[in-house]
Amino acid sequence: MIIGFIGFGKVSRNLAELIDSEDVEFITSIEGRSDSTIENIDESKIEVLPTFKEVAAKSDILISATSPKAAADVAKAYGKFASGIYLDLNNISLETTLEIDKHVENLVDGAIIGKIDSDNPTLYISGKTASKLLFLDEFLDVKVISEKAGDVAVLKLLRSSYTKTLTALLIESFEIAQKHDLENEFFEIVSLTEGDDFKEKSLSRITNTLKNPKRKAEELEEIISCFDDGELIMVKSALEKLNQY
Amino acid sequence: MIIGFIGFGKVSRNLAELIDSEDVEFITSIEGRSDSTIENIDESKIEVLPTFKEVAAKSDILISATSPKAAADVAKAYGKFASGIYLDLNNISLETTLEIDKHVENLVDGAIIGKIDSDNPTLYISGKTASKLLFLDEFLDVKVISEKAGDVAVLKLLRSSYTKTLTALLIESFEIAQKHDLENEFFEIVSLTEGDDFKEKSLSRITNTLKNPKRKAEELEEIISCFDDGELIMVKSALEKLNQY
Repeated sequence: MIIGFIGFGKVSRNLAELIDSEDVEFITSIEGRSDSTIENIDESKIEVLPTFKEVAAKSDILISATSPKAAADVAKAYGKFASGIYLDLNNISLETTLEIDKHVENLVDGAIIGKIDSDNPTLYISGKTASKLLFLDEFLDVKVISEKAGDVAVLKLLRSSYTKTLTALLIESFEIAQKHDLENEFFEIVSLTEGDDFKEKSLSRITNTLKNPKRKAEELEEIISCFDDGELIMVKSALEKLNQY
Repeated sequence: MIIGFIGFGKVSRNLAELIDSEDVEFITSIEGRSDSTIENIDESKIEVLPTFKEVAAKSDILISATSPKAAADVAKAYGKFASGIYLDLNNISLETTLEIDKHVENLVDGAIIGKIDSDNPTLYISGKTASKLLFLDEFLDVKVISEKAGDVAVLKLLRSSYTKTLTALLIESFEIAQKHDLENEFFEIVSLTEGDDFKEKSLSRITNTLKNPKRKAEELEEIISCFDDGELIMVKSALEKLNQY
């Protein structure tokens, strides 16, 4: 079994470490790669081929883990050479996933939830051949969502939509509480139903979002453009809220 | 120590049971009360005086636990006869609390969070003399929020505002997930960060709200009229959402 990587950043490097099996061989290429990626590759001692075209052709599973912006171009350039499964792990939109699907025979779209270098990352996958990747369950949690490439992208967006809108609500609630000098009491009273870690988790979400409200707002815009048929009220008001900062 | 009750429903009856002390005597009146209340009083075997005026005058702590609608009238009628602490436990707005404060010498506003007949109800109180009620901590959890009567009302509204708006977000997220046939997967993926009981808790909130969306919307309107200086975005959109059902 040969697993090929296009892109060899944190995700790929950690996957190569997690999938610790004698039956699996890893390949990639340094064609056009950055110095830091080449360093990563050298440290990992995985086999290096001259071109990504050869990597694609030789791989039973070709993993694209580059960047959301490059994902579609990578698929267009190398998808046609892939003879096995093409697993896209870039954090891409549903639109990009469906675009990639046009250029790739056996697309599986995937997302790693939880930090890849944590104890328990979970790999969510969907696509016609997704269940063929279940053997990876030996190395990390694998959940097959459906046979429809794109469903993981939808799920990722749904999750992101929920947590970002929740954070907008937390910011608003915190502001009202602050106005009445009752922040701590607010967290305490809501903890009774939301759990003991409510305060810590909420403050970390608020801080994290207010550090970069513009980027979060952009992400919400992407979510809205993907989901909205005019029925989104809460998510749109979260966007309005974040645009105030 | 004499504790008097105006209103003898679930809250009063359970409090009289919880405060199980030889040093405390309970009084109330059946003046103008309903049959079911009189039955409650008979079963509890607390002392019955001819009038609430006498109950108010005799009590060290006078507890008003009637109904949100009656709370202000009760305060107007009997507040002036209360010589001790007047503890209002009705689920009233900040506006009503401040109205009551005009008719009562030593107002403490309180709220019981968690079910009164559960293992661990918590009594939140605020007001100048609130700390004098800390002796009740022997019988149930007591938290003094501040010396300002009305702060508990604000806190109650804040909590209610947060959970109702959260539920509107849950409904919207659930609807998008449903449209993509990914409800279970949505709950599962969000559980990774929100805790194992996320699905159960969320579905119960959604069901509970959609059973009576009008009433929930009215409660949101009250919250908005109390808090809004034009800056509420999330809470207002929750109202808009609930008004669709």
